Order: sequence, then structure tokens, then C-alpha cells
Amino acid sequence: MNQLIETILNHRSVRQYEDKLLTDEQIHSIVKSAQAASTSSYIQAYSIIGVKNKEIKRRLAQLAGNQPYVEKNGHLFIFCADLHRHDVIAEMEQKELTTSLESTEKFMVSLIDASLAAQNAALAAESMGLGICYIGGLRNELTEVTELLKLPDHVIPLFGLTVGYPARETDKKPRLPLENVYHEEIYQQDTEKYKQQLHQYNQLISSYYEKRTNGKRKDTWTGQMAHMLSNPTRMYMKEFVEEKGFNKK
Amino acid sequence: MNQLIETILNHRSVRQYEDKLLTDEQIHSIVKSAQAASTSSYIQAYSIIGVKNKEIKRRLAQLAGNQPYVEKNGHLFIFCADLHRHDVIAEMEQKELTTSLESTEKFMVSLIDASLAAQNAALAAESMGLGICYIGGLRNELTEVTELLKLPDHVIPLFGLTVGYPARETDKKPRLPLENVYHEEIYQQDTEKYKQQLHQYNQLISSYYEKRTNGKRKDTWTGQMAHMLSNPTRMYMKEFVEEKGFNKK
Repeated sequence: MNQLIETILNHRSVRQYEDKLLTDEQIHSIVKSAQAASTSSYIQAYSIIGVKNKEIKRRLAQLAGNQPYVEKNGHLFIFCADLHRHDVIAEMEQKELTTSLESTEKFMVSLIDASLAAQNAALAAESMGLGICYIGGLRNELTEVTELLKLPDHVIPLFGLTVGYPARETDKKPRLPLENVYHEEIYQQDTEKYKQQLHQYNQLISSYYEKRTNGKRKDTWTGQMAHMLSNPTRMYMKEFVEEKGFNKK
Repeated sequence: MNQLIETILNHRSVRQYEDKLLTDEQIHSIVKSAQAASTSSYIQAYSIIGVKNKEIKRRLAQLAGNQPYVEKNGHLFIFCADLHRHDVIAEMEQKELTTSLESTEKFMVSLIDASLAAQNAALAAESMGLGICYIGGLRNELTEVTELLKLPDHVIPLFGLTVGYPARETDKKPRLPLENVYHEEIYQQDTEKYKQQLHQYNQLISSYYEKRTNGKRKDTWTGQMAHMLSNPTRMYMKEFVEEKGFNKK
């Protein structure tokens, strides 16, 4: 196993950081790394907002469900799907691009592009000994986040990425059995085997939580998922992304 | 700059591979790396299909627009957004999860999860001296790809990832100016400066293509984007993803 794979496998989310900001040089390396990721047909359909301002951070932390680490970290990046740049191109090149830009296909492209870039950023940060955490909680209140960051149409915040010097050791969370995620040739057809894998994973997760909480928590993974998904959240999203000019056609 | 960041910055797409397959050990490391990526609320909403079968590869290469490297590579991974697993969980846990699973929010979550995993896979491969190329062309014909890979509902192929031993040196493609992608505190408000950055980038891209093609190609980036986006493609996508149970609510 080489060192890069070791860094990848050693990932854990860090939610408590030392009171020490990243330097501009570190931020620059992280953004350059993000930009080096593959991009669909060279479209580069994302932007990154870097937030240092304490007041904006505090407000974003509130909007993300009062997560203190959104405020207290070394740096906060917000990754956005961005097709506004291509609106500007339409104007510069005097072409009609609306149908493409408002398509579900390009919505997908912008999400994929932004996510590939973000994962490069996350790994670049981790390779410097920094910890990271993705902040999906920003999607709780996208209207407010959009106003706060003054995002034009055709730009939507997807998630935050907090980066900083870890203040506390955290555990790695065990992933699904490889065989449940990785299928050879075609999708796994044997439903019983598939369920068996999930049961086996449940046992692993139960003992993981039990150990971590001194017996207080005994969740299974499927139980946790069923609980989470039986309470639909962020159901305003379809309307919101359409209002912003995405996913309409 | 550390070695991991060097690997990231050294990325280029490789479209010609030696006739040498990856070992199962290599494939295993790549998939394990993919799985170690962050996942939204632990949902792990993706699957990976690994294709070795020559006939399936040949057919996928045709469907992706006759790209020979989809057939000829060391291994072909297909990354899928996958909420079928959570359909199975609904059955196991006897809960009603449809509203969540069919939401635009969970569509986004599954795309982001799959993409973070894929970028880990890409970097793990590159760290082993292998080359990679993302294959968005699979989205040309998702109905056929879905049938070929026998994907159930709530699973959609997002892109392929070819991996293999590079047979030819390729160039790195210059990215947008950092200042155009990375905004401090709020989104860049100065439209003239923004356009100036794009003009400056156009000059860089023109000379890149000119050099690479001995003066034959003189594209600008905005010209290339305007050309591509003025021909809307994959406009069946909205209906397709909805039929598969995504992005409906």
C-alpha cells in the first residue's frame, strides 16, 4: 500500500479544530488541487467560496443546524455547482445556451464536477496533516446561504468543507462490505445474499457503536438509515434548484 | 508540495492503455479507497460495477460514442448513484421511505456520494502509476447501459472510469485562473473583472491548442463552451432519472 492510499484509507471526519487558521499558501494549494480534478468536457462547472469572515461563518454555522465546527475551524470552503460562468459565456459569445444550462444533464454535470474537485481538496488538506469535514447541513437553508454569499442565478451551494488542525482524535467509521458495493460484470442479482451482507454489516456497526459509547448506543446501519429516511428533509430542494435555473428541462 | 498533492496536480486523462489487465489486488485497493470517501449522513448511496467481460466492454464502448479506450483498458469501473439499497432497507425495516428516496435532495446526495468515491478511486489508481479517464459518454444511452448491467430501479449509471497502464504521454489541460473559481467571502461581484479573467484564460487556451496541434487548432475556452452548449445533448435525462425513481419530489 502506498502513502496516498494510506491517507485515503485513514480518512475520518474531524469536527473539532485547534484555534489556528490556514495560511493563504495552504488555501492556495488546496484550491489548486481541487481545480486539477477531471471535469466533464472541460466545462469546469463549479466555484468555491472561501470564508474567513467570522460573522459570515457564525451565520453559516447557525444555518447548517448549529454545528459549531462550521464556525470554528482553520478555513471554511463552500463548494457550489456553477453554470453562471456559462451564462456569461453566452453573452460573450452571443449564443443561446439556456436549454443546455437548464437541463438535468448539466445539473448532474455540475454536481459531479464540484464533487470531484471537493474530494481533491479534502485529500490535499489531509495530506498536509489537516482534518476535514463535509457540511451537508448547508442544504437546510439554501435560500439564506445563497443570499449571504451573494450567489447569482445558476449557482447553488452544495456543501461546505471545513478544514483545520484536528483537536481531537476521531474514529474511522466502517464501510459497507466491499461485495455489497462492488459488483462484477452486472448488478448483484441474488437478493438474499445482498440482504445477508447488510445483516452482517449491521452486526459490525452495532458493535462499533457499542464499543464507542460504552454500550449506550446499539444502532444497526439499516435501522439508522430507515430512521433517517422515514423523516423526509429538504423537500424544498426541487423547487429551489429550478428557481435557480437548474434541473428544469 | 507533498507527494499526494504532486500526484493530484500531475493529473491528465489517459485514453490509450497498454494491453495489460489490473490484478484483483489492484482493483480491491481502488474500491476500498473509493469506499473510504466521506458519505452524506453515512448513507453510502452508490455502487460500482467492475467490467472485465470483453463483450460487455465492447458494447459499452459503442454506447459511449465509440470510444475505443472504454473497451481497451486495464479495468472499467462504472459508478452508479444507488438508492436501491435503501429500498431493500425499507423492506427489511418495514418503513415507508419513498418520499425521501425520490426527492431531489437524495438525488443530489447520491451523485455527490458517488463522485467523492470515484475521485478517491481515480487518485488511488494514479498513485499506483496507472492512468485514468472518466467516461461521461455512458450518459448518452442510459437505458441500454442500465439493461446491460441489469441495474434495478433507484440505480443510475453516472459515468465510467477507465484505468490502465498508460501507453502514451498526454498533456495536462490548463485550468481556469484560480481567481475565477475561488471567491473570498462572497461571490465575485465585479463582472468586468470576471470577464477579463475569462479573456485572459482564452489566450492561454488558444496558445495551448496551437502549440499542441502545430497551429491547426486555435480554439478559445469560451468559444469551445459556447459551441458545445449551443447543441443541447442528453435531453432525455430528466425523464430518465424520474422513471428510475430519482429527482421526482
